Amino acid sequence: MNTENNIKTLIVKKPLKLDCGKTINEFPIAYETYGSLNENKDNAILVFHALTGDQFVTGVNPITKKDGWWSYAVGPDKAIDTKKYFVICANVIGGCMGSFGPSYKDSQTGKAFGTNFPIITINDMVNAQYNLLDHFGIDKLFSIAGGSMGGMQVLQFISNFPDKAKTVIPIACTSSHSAQNIAFNELGRQAIAADSNWKEGNYSSNDTIPNKGLAVARMAAHITYLSKKGLQEKFGRKLQEREDIKFGFDADFQIESYLRYQGSVFVDRFDANSYLYITRAMDYFDLAKQFKGNLSDAFKATKAKFFIISFTSDWLYPTQENKDIVIALNSIGADVGFVEIESDKGHDSFLLDVPDFLNALKNFLDKSYIES
Amino acid sequence: MNTENNIKTLIVKKPLKLDCGKTINEFPIAYETYGSLNENKDNAILVFHALTGDQFVTGVNPITKKDGWWSYAVGPDKAIDTKKYFVICANVIGGCMGSFGPSYKDSQTGKAFGTNFPIITINDMVNAQYNLLDHFGIDKLFSIAGGSMGGMQVLQFISNFPDKAKTVIPIACTSSHSAQNIAFNELGRQAIAADSNWKEGNYSSNDTIPNKGLAVARMAAHITYLSKKGLQEKFGRKLQEREDIKFGFDADFQIESYLRYQGSVFVDRFDANSYLYITRAMDYFDLAKQFKGNLSDAFKATKAKFFIISFTSDWLYPTQENKDIVIALNSIGADVGFVEIESDKGHDSFLLDVPDFLNALKNFLDKSYIES
Repeated sequence: MNTENNIKTLIVKKPLKLDCGKTINEFPIAYETYGSLNENKDNAILVFHALTGDQFVTGVNPITKKDGWWSYAVGPDKAIDTKKYFVICANVIGGCMGSFGPSYKDSQTGKAFGTNFPIITINDMVNAQYNLLDHFGIDKLFSIAGGSMGGMQVLQFISNFPDKAKTVIPIACTSSHSAQNIAFNELGRQAIAADSNWKEGNYSSNDTIPNKGLAVARMAAHITYLSKKGLQEKFGRKLQEREDIKFGFDADFQIESYLRYQGSVFVDRFDANSYLYITRAMDYFDLAKQFKGNLSDAFKATKAKFFIISFTSDWLYPTQENKDIVIALNSIGADVGFVEIESDKGHDSFLLDVPDFLNALKNFLDKSYIES
Repeated sequence: MNTENNIKTLIVKKPLKLDCGKTINEFPIAYETYGSLNENKDNAILVFHALTGDQFVTGVNPITKKDGWWSYAVGPDKAIDTKKYFVICANVIGGCMGSFGPSYKDSQTGKAFGTNFPIITINDMVNAQYNLLDHFGIDKLFSIAGGSMGGMQVLQFISNFPDKAKTVIPIACTSSHSAQNIAFNELGRQAIAADSNWKEGNYSSNDTIPNKGLAVARMAAHITYLSKKGLQEKFGRKLQEREDIKFGFDADFQIESYLRYQGSVFVDRFDANSYLYITRAMDYFDLAKQFKGNLSDAFKATKAKFFIISFTSDWLYPTQENKDIVIALNSIGADVGFVEIESDKGHDSFLLDVPDFLNALKNFLDKSYIES
């Protein structure tokens, strides 16, 4: 994977003590920006990406040559209007798009860290990204926003840095992974570990990569991103370029062909060890646990204005789990808005063209910006 | 796997033409019976097993040494009372517990068929099992019953042999696989195919077996058998014999340990190629398609009494899909009862100790038996 070109990198000089106890020094954070930071430096929005996202939020991703993952939401005149706001997004640590992660070369051995990379957490991710504020000289962000694991980072960021954002937008997320969430992530990890090319994570040194296992992990996750109803409407039992079933194991059904495709394109852009580390960080995330089981306490110190968004057909992080965050905020009298958006597109709704969602996001931001 | 001992086998002499076009001859059907066939031969219940089940319905399975898969429902004084009824269950063709399947040795090559085994369908399965009626001299079964893929076989059987059963009990099933059902099965198949030991299905000849891939397939399926709520109540974020997370990839959470265990014990009793063939049969199942899209027509010729059972938390074959069968039966004025059982145990409810379900099953059978 060419991650050298087109990637802006901040080398963080300040040592970062990770939750696992290790300290990392002089590590890279790869990031991208969109729009311009205004003179007052009060129009910045820090966007956090999801499990398989990266810093290339919108426009053409220079590495994959595909549209950025939040192209529907971010851009000129879009919900997160880059004519108005300065958008920053960083690749999470543990990732594989230029930030410090398991595919990064250990200067001592000259080889990729692999599974010698330290276990990282959502807390570590946001602490690493906090360095971007100093880098840009931003005292307070206008907003922080993200869906899925991006939403977890939003929650962790405002908990760690309560006066560093005016508005806070966690989307389609949870304050801790459920048993079913952990189960699906573990399934993905086991699929990678089952690939004989994985070699306990040391595959980059022997030039083979566990693509088959990673593709299976992606297929499993992909099913959880879509709703049963959405899949039925889009694919149902439609056949793949054939008149009838072929009595074999080829992809007779469009849904099979689609899943295989999702697996195959994913392995071209993602690192199997990163998949292990990032899913682990998600499973470990438990914001209430950081406050002796009281989720409200995570938000006690902030005066930020929250806007929480969930989707009706999201069964990965259902509305109830988003509402639990609203309830925790309500119980301390925080400024919080909430909307559940009607959509058949499942968890992926936040990435797609869902007008009610995009309008709600735009209106909240623009109204808050005028008021601020 | 020792499948020689303790396995009763009927060698079917009559050629069976499969849906794929091939004809099979002199093939074995492994079966088990419980209770006694009465003099009138009118107390027999043919039970059909699910994807990973076998003929050992109750008592101790002589091969796995574990309880039979329907021990809660079948036995003396149980819902399907073996003091009263004569229960027959056969291993499906395509299976791996003694019936004709991909691990069966091809007499011409002396090797297991592997992926040279013909693709089989639910229709082929029930046509093969129909031979047991002749074998036992049973003109009409008192009942046919089964959950999940067993329920699909129930529906197909009564459609093929409309006057061969008095009562018909499809449980937690569907008349055709949804896109999401196919997606999960395809995920399992891809996990097996990703295992370098699978070798296009020819593993038995080189003494390696694709256990890792098969275990991943089982883990994926297992998640779909349990409800989100049930998983949360049973496991939540409970840790596995440790005080806190260990910052590694070991099974920190009980749900991880549980899934790994489910995968590991499964591979001891199941054949990877059978998993491919049987999931394919399930995906191909589409009863309405056999009748030009009209599901009601599948049941037009029968006077049997139906009793359909679904479970509230079953998201694999949700109540609505079971109700669709009821609606098809209602529209032709068939004799049909339906109950949705409240349970947090997901799809697996039909295998577990769910008293409302077991009582409903028992009452329907016993009432129907008195009336008959």
